Order: sequence, then structure tokens, then C-alpha cells
Amino acid sequence: MNLLDGKLISDRIKAEIAAEVKTKMLDAGKVAPHLAAILVGEDPASQTYVASKEKDCKEVGFISSVYKYPANLSQEKLLEAIRFLNNDPEIDGFIVQLPLPKHIDEHTIIESIDPAKDVDGFHPVNVGRMVLNIPSYLPATPYGIITLLESYKIETAGKHCVILGRSNIVGTPVSILLSRKSKTGNATVTLCNSHTPNLQAIAATADILIVAMGKKEFVTAEMVKKDAVVIDVGIHRVPSEETKSGYKLTGDVNFIDVAKKCSYITPVPGGIGPMTRVSLLLNTLKAAKKEFKF
Amino acid sequence: MNLLDGKLISDRIKAEIAAEVKTKMLDAGKVAPHLAAILVGEDPASQTYVASKEKDCKEVGFISSVYKYPANLSQEKLLEAIRFLNNDPEIDGFIVQLPLPKHIDEHTIIESIDPAKDVDGFHPVNVGRMVLNIPSYLPATPYGIITLLESYKIETAGKHCVILGRSNIVGTPVSILLSRKSKTGNATVTLCNSHTPNLQAIAATADILIVAMGKKEFVTAEMVKKDAVVIDVGIHRVPSEETKSGYKLTGDVNFIDVAKKCSYITPVPGGIGPMTRVSLLLNTLKAAKKEFKF
Repeated sequence: MNLLDGKLISDRIKAEIAAEVKTKMLDAGKVAPHLAAILVGEDPASQTYVASKEKDCKEVGFISSVYKYPANLSQEKLLEAIRFLNNDPEIDGFIVQLPLPKHIDEHTIIESIDPAKDVDGFHPVNVGRMVLNIPSYLPATPYGIITLLESYKIETAGKHCVILGRSNIVGTPVSILLSRKSKTGNATVTLCNSHTPNLQAIAATADILIVAMGKKEFVTAEMVKKDAVVIDVGIHRVPSEETKSGYKLTGDVNFIDVAKKCSYITPVPGGIGPMTRVSLLLNTLKAAKKEFKF
Repeated sequence: MNLLDGKLISDRIKAEIAAEVKTKMLDAGKVAPHLAAILVGEDPASQTYVASKEKDCKEVGFISSVYKYPANLSQEKLLEAIRFLNNDPEIDGFIVQLPLPKHIDEHTIIESIDPAKDVDGFHPVNVGRMVLNIPSYLPATPYGIITLLESYKIETAGKHCVILGRSNIVGTPVSILLSRKSKTGNATVTLCNSHTPNLQAIAATADILIVAMGKKEFVTAEMVKKDAVVIDVGIHRVPSEETKSGYKLTGDVNFIDVAKKCSYITPVPGGIGPMTRVSLLLNTLKAAKKEFKF
């Protein structure tokens, strides 16, 4: 078994980004890429995510701004804030941290973001371009998965990829990327969901198994083919006596059990988490360089 | 074996559309829906497709216009024609018949169409909305397949759908529709492509098999599970002594062989072809009624 070390690969990519920002931007008298985040309400998980995005930006030399609003912000006021960022030439890209309070329609908000600044890759234009294989921002987790597979030179063409979970931010887009006619693509892809009756049996046919179900340690060795590649997107906090904090992190895969049987596996933490974070930085860099035409 | 009779279902839908146009539009003093088509060059197949779209419009009481240009039309002139149709309030929806001459970039053309008038459902905004389950124009063939399954009350939730072929206009969008959280969705979907090594074996696991490969009579009984539902999207013209014209039409499925084993099957012709055609009419009707907000 080999680790797919997302921490290692993301650190390497961050070093490359930092070098590019320094030599090609700052030393050349240009400004650094600028990422903004809009945070509505006090959800602790969202606060943590936005704080780590700020930390990541600092690490590679990006400028970051956070716009914080109370949970009772009206949809119209949020749309106004988005229009402001859409029109601000100093902001290269921005994200609206999800989930939003229930009185705000998520689709309306996402569709109001200028696709050229939509570094989360959630706007229908970017999703549609992804499907059609037109250069665009890719959503961070699928982008991170693809980059990790590429970094370890894992062949996807002709392989059977099974994906457990069909969310809009992980399962569905990664199924699209892996089946596209492209470098880390050309796979036969099976996308499973909560209605799939024989999940275990299907998972066990996968050459590459991607698990994004949100079910703690659901995948065991019986569900994995010998020498499969296993990508664990889940993250759960469980009580632990081994750590000072009193808890530890685990994924959708029973790591100890599955690691004995597979050829490659992502750890949790240190697998897809850091790859997701670095993907947002890569998108922001592309935004600053205006890599895509809209 | 039961026929999935696309001709019958599409005739029924056309009668409903015609009745709606008459009673709710014409009798109420409103104008009928207006579909326009842009045809560049002299490709015989494209000419036939556009002519049948005109015929379909006439049949349900829609207005249709065709804008014909020579094959050497510049991209800029084509963009100008599209801008004209985008801004013409009398045109509810329009299509640009594909393929386009090689000197014209297809993506640029499709992205220049106003998504609100993109009744082919090819614009990235419409493709992205389809992925995200936001109401939008669906591409005609996948829309026709879904409508046909729905008409025959074929359950898709929890079923294993295998799709042979991943084109942007059939295989990929139908894989998205069938795996979505929606009425004729919630299926486990396997999308195969030309790199898939064990196509026959995978096809034989399908509860619902959709064949859109463009390979004449490729699917035989051994590739089909007993009592599967078989959807044949292929269409090929083969020499025949049985017909006056000297040729007959056949699909990607060996109909006579497969029909004995499956529970439902689409004939060719008279299956997905007419369902595709009626889907364009349905999209045009939605465009005239401004059913989707953009």
C-alpha cells in the first residue's frame, strides 16, 4: 500500500504558487492575486473554513479579504455585496461560503457571481464548461482529486472508477471529469447514490474507488478490490483517547482495514482536505492571470 | 418484449402542443411560438434535419424561419446573425445547426447564443443548470429518452443504467439526468466510452441499457441482461432489398436478436428519433412561455 499524500503534494504546489507570485508578480511590480470571501452568519464550520482559506492565501503571498455579514442579511443586500465584488477590479476571485441561511436562495446567489470570478467553480457556466471540456474553473474537491491522481501518475483511461455519493460539489463533478476525453479522464465511471441497492458489490468492482458519502468508516476491505486505488473524501471527528484534544479525524473509509488490500489510499487527515484547499489557490491564481475567457 | 413506441408518444405530445397553441395562444389573440434555425453550408444531413424541424413546427402550429448562409460565412458574420436573433423579440428560440464549417469555433458560437433562446440546451449555462438540477432547456435526445421512459412508467430509481457512448449531446447529458435526484433519475449510472475494455460484460449488467455509440447493430443478445430495457439512439442507413428505396434504417442494436431477451426496446426508426424531434418543440414552447428565468 502506498499513501496518496495530499499534504505533501499540496505543499509542493503551494511552494510553486508562492514562487510564481514572488518572481512573476511582486518582483515585476504587479500586485498579488486577491481572493475575497463572503461569510453570512456564525456557523462555526464555515468560520473555520474561511479562516483556513485566509491562512492559505497568506502562505502563498495572496491578498485575502473577508466580508462578514449577520445571519439575518437580506438576499437583496447579499446580491448587492456580490455586485460590488463583481465590479471591483482589485478582487480577482471570490467565494460565497456555503451553506447560506435558509431565507436566501443559494442558486440565485451563485448565478449572480461573475463567472470570471467564480473560483469555487459553482456557477452553471463553469459547471457547463466542465461538462463540455471548455477551460474553466473546476470545483475544488474534484480538481484536488484529479491533481492528486495525476501527481502519482495513476492511469485512469480504461479503468473502472466507482464513485459513492453524487453531491454537486464532489461526486457528480468528479464523475464528469473522470469520464471526459482528457488526460486524467477516459475512465468508465459508475456513479452511485443512496438508492443504489448493491453498493458493496459495485464498490468491489472498482479499479479506482472514490468515497464521498459522509458515512463514517463505511467502506471496509470486503468492499474493495485487491490493489484498487482508494480516495476518501469524508471527514468526521470522533472521540479519541490517543490525542490531547480528545478527538481525532477519520474518513468514509475504514483506513486500517482497507489499507492492507489496496494499492494506493488517501489518509484522513492529509489526503483530499489539503488538495481541496490548494485547488482554490490554483483557481485564484488562474483568475488573477485571466486564464479563461468569458 | 414491449415496444417503446417513440412515434406514438411523440404524436400524442405533438397533439397536446398543437391544442395548447390553438386554445391558449391563437384563440387568445397571442402569436404562436416561433423557432428559428441557422444553417451554414450545404451538408445534406443538416439540410434534412432543418427541413424536418420546419415540418414539425408547421404540424403543431409554430412559426419557423430558416436563415441559410454559404459554407464560407465568416465567424464574425455568424456571430452577427446570432446577435440579431438574440435581440429579435419575435424569435422565441433558435438553433444553430451543427456541425459548422471547420473555420468556425463551435464553442464560441454556442456561448454567443442567449441562454434564454438556446432551445438546443447546448449553452454551458443550460448544461450547468441541468447538472445542478435548476430548471433549464434539456438537450433534445436525452430529454426525449427521459420522456419516453416516463411515458411507459419505467422505474429508474435504484436501477443500474449503463450508457454506451459519452457524447456531449447524448451519453454524457443522459448520464447526468438519470443520476440526478429527480423523478426519472436516482439511478446508478455507468458511463462507458471507447476506452472501456469490457464493454460487453458491463452492458450485460444493465437494467436499462442506452446505446449511443454510432456502431451499426453492435449490441447483440449476449450483451443484454434478460428483461432489460433497451434504448437505441443509433441510426444507420443500410442497403435493403425489402424496400422500394433500396435501403432501410437500423440502429446500434441488433433489434431482432435483442428483442427476444429484453422487456422493452425502442425500434429504429420510430423510437428515439421522433422523441428527439418533439423535445425541440417542447423546448420552444417553454421558450415562448418564458418558463425559465435567466
